[in-house]
Amino acid sequence: MAVSPAVAGDGRETGVCAPSGFVAGAAAADIRDHGGDGRLDVAIVRSQRPCQAAGVFTRNLVKAAPVVISQLTLRQGRVQAVLFNSGNANACTGVQGFRDALAMCKAAGDACDLDPAQILVCSTGVIGRPMPMSRVLGGVRAAAAALGPEAGDGVARAIMTTDTVPKQAVRRVEIGGRPVVVGGVAKGSGMIHPDMATLLALVTTDAPVADGVLQPLLRRVTDQTFNCVTVDGDTSTNDTLLMLANGAAGGEPVSAGGGGLAALETAVLEVCDELAEMVAADGEGATRHFRVEVRGAATVEQARLAARTVAGSPLVKTAIHGCDPNWGRIVAAVGRSGAAFVLDRCRVVIGGIPVFVGGAPVDADLEVIRCIFGGRRVDLGIDLGAGEAVGHAWGCDLSDGYVRINADYTT
Amino acid sequence: MAVSPAVAGDGRETGVCAPSGFVAGAAAADIRDHGGDGRLDVAIVRSQRPCQAAGVFTRNLVKAAPVVISQLTLRQGRVQAVLFNSGNANACTGVQGFRDALAMCKAAGDACDLDPAQILVCSTGVIGRPMPMSRVLGGVRAAAAALGPEAGDGVARAIMTTDTVPKQAVRRVEIGGRPVVVGGVAKGSGMIHPDMATLLALVTTDAPVADGVLQPLLRRVTDQTFNCVTVDGDTSTNDTLLMLANGAAGGEPVSAGGGGLAALETAVLEVCDELAEMVAADGEGATRHFRVEVRGAATVEQARLAARTVAGSPLVKTAIHGCDPNWGRIVAAVGRSGAAFVLDRCRVVIGGIPVFVGGAPVDADLEVIRCIFGGRRVDLGIDLGAGEAVGHAWGCDLSDGYVRINADYTT
Repeated sequence: MAVSPAVAGDGRETGVCAPSGFVAGAAAADIRDHGGDGRLDVAIVRSQRPCQAAGVFTRNLVKAAPVVISQLTLRQGRVQAVLFNSGNANACTGVQGFRDALAMCKAAGDACDLDPAQILVCSTGVIGRPMPMSRVLGGVRAAAAALGPEAGDGVARAIMTTDTVPKQAVRRVEIGGRPVVVGGVAKGSGMIHPDMATLLALVTTDAPVADGVLQPLLRRVTDQTFNCVTVDGDTSTNDTLLMLANGAAGGEPVSAGGGGLAALETAVLEVCDELAEMVAADGEGATRHFRVEVRGAATVEQARLAARTVAGSPLVKTAIHGCDPNWGRIVAAVGRSGAAFVLDRCRVVIGGIPVFVGGAPVDADLEVIRCIFGGRRVDLGIDLGAGEAVGHAWGCDLSDGYVRINADYTT
Repeated sequence: MAVSPAVAGDGRETGVCAPSGFVAGAAAADIRDHGGDGRLDVAIVRSQRPCQAAGVFTRNLVKAAPVVISQLTLRQGRVQAVLFNSGNANACTGVQGFRDALAMCKAAGDACDLDPAQILVCSTGVIGRPMPMSRVLGGVRAAAAALGPEAGDGVARAIMTTDTVPKQAVRRVEIGGRPVVVGGVAKGSGMIHPDMATLLALVTTDAPVADGVLQPLLRRVTDQTFNCVTVDGDTSTNDTLLMLANGAAGGEPVSAGGGGLAALETAVLEVCDELAEMVAADGEGATRHFRVEVRGAATVEQARLAARTVAGSPLVKTAIHGCDPNWGRIVAAVGRSGAAFVLDRCRVVIGGIPVFVGGAPVDADLEVIRCIFGGRRVDLGIDLGAGEAVGHAWGCDLSDGYVRINADYTT
């Protein structure tokens, strides 16, 4: 199948607005109480018609109120809009948090002429503080008033917290002879770890999709993309990845046994993989990011486990930050990962240079490794020698910038 | 039972030399190849007679050669000495690493007039580099030549890597009417995580101990002390906690059903708990350390799991570093720990101040929390509301110092 990474439409419609039949609006509601600095912090994405919807949520037992509300909404039926805010996570906020999340859906429904039960809600920001509801609701109304086809970038900016760049991706694909577009937006910079989606992400498509197809598709894609990113090992209370398919492209619905499924899934996978790499690259304080490719694992799960353990190791992350060719830390991280491996068939390669083969060090030029670690992106390859399975993970270096960002987050 | 924390003997005999019948020696062998800077890096601890011995080792699948050798030695019989070096871990060094570890035991045996099979060996330092054996063996001979009752401090210094202070502890206890001494030494600063002992530690005692008693005692103590420390979540290839009991105090051997066991175990527990807190407080780059006490857990294992997860969370660690009263991160870490809890019975207390009770925030004075986080030691209390079990963990803050230390370790 041919999947084109080009920007869709006329070039103005980006991210979640690239597929037909989606509009969006963003507003600056000063949720952070920074004296009205004009920073976008509320966004609405609305489909012109009801959508097939799917969601993957945090596995943290402490789920923010909007996560619980959105999970329930998804079970009830079709969805037509998603409401986002940044600056406050509405987590650990007791029963008032649920009232506030529902009031946000109500306000968005009123302003968008939709049933509140058709609206998903996502919040991100500081935990344990009450939502400043008068400002939030003003923001919801302003975002709804701004709805239009050119606000994909506004959505990407409104959901940013410590992110330094907005994150969007688009793919075009042909299904049943008709052009179909998949668009995505994500935020995520810290509190990012596998076993959860990234902090907040939304994928939209105008593909028509049959009942029962979208949720398993999104789960499969998540396992290969957002669940392969680790920034700091902390799992958020708010992580949410949503997908909406509105069918505006027309044609036969993509079904579980049909030929269009692989094409659609590939496009969604590419959008999510691009977003996942952007999340790793924009990890809090990151100066570079890296991909860990694990081969020779007994199972796919073990391949991913080993890759994530290496990607999450503070000692690997600091070594890459400091361009220190201390590859023994990679082997040590693999050894504690829980994945089976055969030491005398194990192999570690850094940017194409073998450093550890068959249980013993190779006489590699450490100055070359140092240069490889100095790049914007580093590729680590590990063969466990225990099977045939493959998996990967994205990580970023650990810098003093991470410490600075997180030592003074709420103040 | 009365356990005295006072230094044993005449005050000169500290740490592992405090119990009767143990001598030690340390030497500077320049294993780091720093131009002969005089830093102690080899140590031997020798008992005057064969000991009951026990060991707890890293669960990392990549075990350094000295770990494998020491595990085999422990299975074979009685032990009479322990050989340490810092500066090189002898890990990921292939078959040559085994030859080198065995050659170290041989040299120590020759120099101490012992069978090499009675000698345990422990290495710590950089991974994946061949041991500089001519300097190492010279150090072994020099340490053996220096054996005496006053070298406890020398041992503590010789095993330091990024540690900033030597770590020793002593307890005196009476068993069967006779004074018994327990001494300990530890090193550990980074690559410290539960599910392993700390990097290197040795506990000595002159208590007489019956067969089969020491190993289960040491395992129980480890679970409550060193396995409760986390600095960075990385599990080393070399972690080793050893215990030797030489019986020099005389009297009836402590047996599984006997009255002396509780007294001995309490003394060992206190020595290891003191060392564990010192390891946390000296975590790489740490400016303060903290204790997480979890109550109301369904099981002891879940209490410890929740405590460790909070103690290991980079977001909690950076908040404490920055005196940021962002307690929501504590709740989020508990929520992802895997321990069962009941949100509306959950309670989080910082230095005695409740901040989160029954699933909702308390209107706590955040400036007071900020002051509490500014102390040298911080106490966090969490009630999961799910049972009666209790557990704890030690952690330290995450500072830019950690990043600096680890970004440039091998160079």
